[in-house]
Amino acid sequence: MSATPATGRLEAIFDKAATLGEALAVLSWDMSAMMPEGGAQARAEQMALIKTIIHQTVTAPEVQDLLGAAGSEALDPWRAANLHEMHRDWVHAAAVPAELVEALSKAESTCEMVWRDARPAADFQRVLPTLKPLLALVREAGQAKSEALGVGIYDALLDQYEPDGRSADIDLVFADLETFLPDFIERALSVQAARPAALALPGPFPTAAQKALGKTIMEVLGFDFGHGRLDESLHPFCGGIPADVRLTTRYDEAQFTKSLMGVIHETGHALYEMGLPAAPWRRQPIGRARGMQMHESQSLLMEMQACRSREFLTFAAPLLREAFQTEGPAWEPDNLARHFTRVERGFIRVDADEATYPAHVIIRYGLEKALIEGRMELDDLPEAWDAGYRRLLGITPPDDRLGCLQDIHWFGGAWGYFPTYTLGAMTAAQLFDAAKKAVPGIPAAIQRGDFAPLLLWLREHVHGKGSSLSTRGLLTQATGRPLDASVFKAHLAARYLV
Amino acid sequence: MSATPATGRLEAIFDKAATLGEALAVLSWDMSAMMPEGGAQARAEQMALIKTIIHQTVTAPEVQDLLGAAGSEALDPWRAANLHEMHRDWVHAAAVPAELVEALSKAESTCEMVWRDARPAADFQRVLPTLKPLLALVREAGQAKSEALGVGIYDALLDQYEPDGRSADIDLVFADLETFLPDFIERALSVQAARPAALALPGPFPTAAQKALGKTIMEVLGFDFGHGRLDESLHPFCGGIPADVRLTTRYDEAQFTKSLMGVIHETGHALYEMGLPAAPWRRQPIGRARGMQMHESQSLLMEMQACRSREFLTFAAPLLREAFQTEGPAWEPDNLARHFTRVERGFIRVDADEATYPAHVIIRYGLEKALIEGRMELDDLPEAWDAGYRRLLGITPPDDRLGCLQDIHWFGGAWGYFPTYTLGAMTAAQLFDAAKKAVPGIPAAIQRGDFAPLLLWLREHVHGKGSSLSTRGLLTQATGRPLDASVFKAHLAARYLV
Repeated sequence: MSATPATGRLEAIFDKAATLGEALAVLSWDMSAMMPEGGAQARAEQMALIKTIIHQTVTAPEVQDLLGAAGSEALDPWRAANLHEMHRDWVHAAAVPAELVEALSKAESTCEMVWRDARPAADFQRVLPTLKPLLALVREAGQAKSEALGVGIYDALLDQYEPDGRSADIDLVFADLETFLPDFIERALSVQAARPAALALPGPFPTAAQKALGKTIMEVLGFDFGHGRLDESLHPFCGGIPADVRLTTRYDEAQFTKSLMGVIHETGHALYEMGLPAAPWRRQPIGRARGMQMHESQSLLMEMQACRSREFLTFAAPLLREAFQTEGPAWEPDNLARHFTRVERGFIRVDADEATYPAHVIIRYGLEKALIEGRMELDDLPEAWDAGYRRLLGITPPDDRLGCLQDIHWFGGAWGYFPTYTLGAMTAAQLFDAAKKAVPGIPAAIQRGDFAPLLLWLREHVHGKGSSLSTRGLLTQATGRPLDASVFKAHLAARYLV
Repeated sequence: MSATPATGRLEAIFDKAATLGEALAVLSWDMSAMMPEGGAQARAEQMALIKTIIHQTVTAPEVQDLLGAAGSEALDPWRAANLHEMHRDWVHAAAVPAELVEALSKAESTCEMVWRDARPAADFQRVLPTLKPLLALVREAGQAKSEALGVGIYDALLDQYEPDGRSADIDLVFADLETFLPDFIERALSVQAARPAALALPGPFPTAAQKALGKTIMEVLGFDFGHGRLDESLHPFCGGIPADVRLTTRYDEAQFTKSLMGVIHETGHALYEMGLPAAPWRRQPIGRARGMQMHESQSLLMEMQACRSREFLTFAAPLLREAFQTEGPAWEPDNLARHFTRVERGFIRVDADEATYPAHVIIRYGLEKALIEGRMELDDLPEAWDAGYRRLLGITPPDDRLGCLQDIHWFGGAWGYFPTYTLGAMTAAQLFDAAKKAVPGIPAAIQRGDFAPLLLWLREHVHGKGSSLSTRGLLTQATGRPLDASVFKAHLAARYLV
């Protein structure tokens, strides 16, 4: 990689930060998938220290000067886009002092550990004393970034997960969905009730068989086990680095559908990571995934668009029968589709179907915005949470385990993250629609278990682009227009109202 | 932790280095136990970078001044000993430039990866082109440390693993053993041949049963699964950190004895780590294990001294029968002892019994010393290796897989390490003898599966001392005298010649 002097030096600095970020990704995966509880304190300290060193690396005094000097060097478009992303990283990092980075990292680890006990005990009061100082630190960082970015405090936090994401845009889209959803859910439930009931899928489903099936499907989707693993954790996630992606899931021997769809979801994330630009861009800001909206679109495209389709279930049905050594009409694609596209008003976001899912997100988005902007106190969260569920889904959580304690995000310090899920769902619909228009053979290929045509299109139009374009630019280049909720709504109508 | 100014600042610096060292330990465990092959390149770079940052931390310009200033501060004996160890770390680190640290780290990772393929192929020529530059870098570092420490080049490398260890002392002990061993092995084999043959232990031994048994025995020995794990890897080891110890083993369903004894061996290492001084010394040089001689003594004390004893096998026999759902005379303690104390001349060090093991080490020690001191070339290694086996064990390896390619050490950059195994075996005999004299109830307790009296003695006399004393000082305080091969020889005679 040859570059002009200031740019070259900057590339070395960001390479170092990214390499430390990779180490952090392994430590983080290990913390969730492997580490015994007794290692938590030391791990929190290791991670806080590495985050501090990354912060020092990116905010070293020379970086600001180098960014200025690089701006007047003649750069090809990729290097120029990379410089733009470096500048973004620098603004975020330089806005917060090193002490705050360290304090936040430790407060996140501490609060997450308390939450792990508070959640099964449905005891919000237990985590409140550690959540309050964490939120205070998050708001302190948000305030500092708000001034540096010249946006509101919520947008400053959102910008960490979805660069250039703005709540004014989200408000519009979510208001539209909020009008659409209640009536749509009602109609979808009526259509479902009018159909013959789904035949039960009788278990048990041994963990070993589920694991083997999951790995088979991962390979069908394009996952390369020479560059990744599948393990177990309490909360499924996709971690690691592009050269070594670490997926996790959890198994329930009484039913396999959630675990299997969880694996497919995380594989969507993994394929994005595996398809990001290779060296020399791998450890540069431009080599990273564009943001969480696009990342979530990749998981949901695989899970919701591709793999709950009739085509995929037709392909998968014999694999399922073989994996679980079973047969009968319950295992025909039609009946499987009834299970995999069942709509139900429920309390738990991660168990929600795609029709009710946006309601879960809209509730959280409203609450976290109010909390971050200081319009609400944490003490009032449980009640406000329940009110949201009554209003949008017509149900009241019986306790905080099924209510405001269910998700790790806030307790792990991730505020401003939730809207990316539903933005991702809409993006997924729009991308899959465009892919099928560009390559009409995609559904038929999926029915044969051939994901290559889809993956090829995604590699070219999304994965391989890294962060060379904005989310809006990426989506416009790939689909011909910016984010448009109508494709998502049309998808929902086509799947659930006929 | 309050300290005088220079000492306090030094403690903060070494705390940072140790915290990064902990992260490195997790990355290293993951590399051997979890990582897919495709992650190797990125991992090597992550580890090299962290090693470089540790090196920079310990060799920062202020450290030398602080060490000088701290020397004139009034310190309690622990702080003074800690300062002594800091100085030792600093001398080792400051002797080598950062570029060499990074180059060595990368050369180690590269050579180890090539060796992984060369070994099963028995192809020494394949690894030679990467081993040569690695050895050149090791010698370059050894030369630099030799000048800094004022000792010979081999001793400078040995000092990294066994602080204050000197080859002149080892030469004496090994010469004594070399005289003792050939005749002793001959006699042990005669005694063995005169006894009734051991009854076969019929398998297979399912991996799940072996794993469960291993965990049970680990807990009996005192391992705390709240602070550690047991996993699998090609080469069993004990890694991680004191608060989160990571053991590995490998399973062979045709026989369980090696895996079980491997688990016990690594548990001995783990108990040492778990018993090291707690905060505020945990991340200080004084809080570390004393050196590899003492570390190996702890694994061999558990494996060879305690757990191949008649007392332990009497306790373990019913556990084995239950684990493998079997019974019969083969599973009586007497017959188990025949399996667990069988003497045999073999090619593989890690499979060797304690009677022939020193021969494996003496051969490697002579070869690595000659290679490091430039008295021999790597091209001549295979032939010299085979000659050593003919001379000391009377056998000739049929190929290099069973010869000079078998051990990871040299290919991973660990030169000067091997003698600590046999020094550790002698130390183990001497410590176990002293423990039994101090607490005569230890053997009877072991026969009941109660390791508390032994562990208590080790915690007090070895583990809890950290690096507050030299190896010689530690051993003298614990046993009343410095290392004395006669206890080891007496142990061998008592177990194998009667």
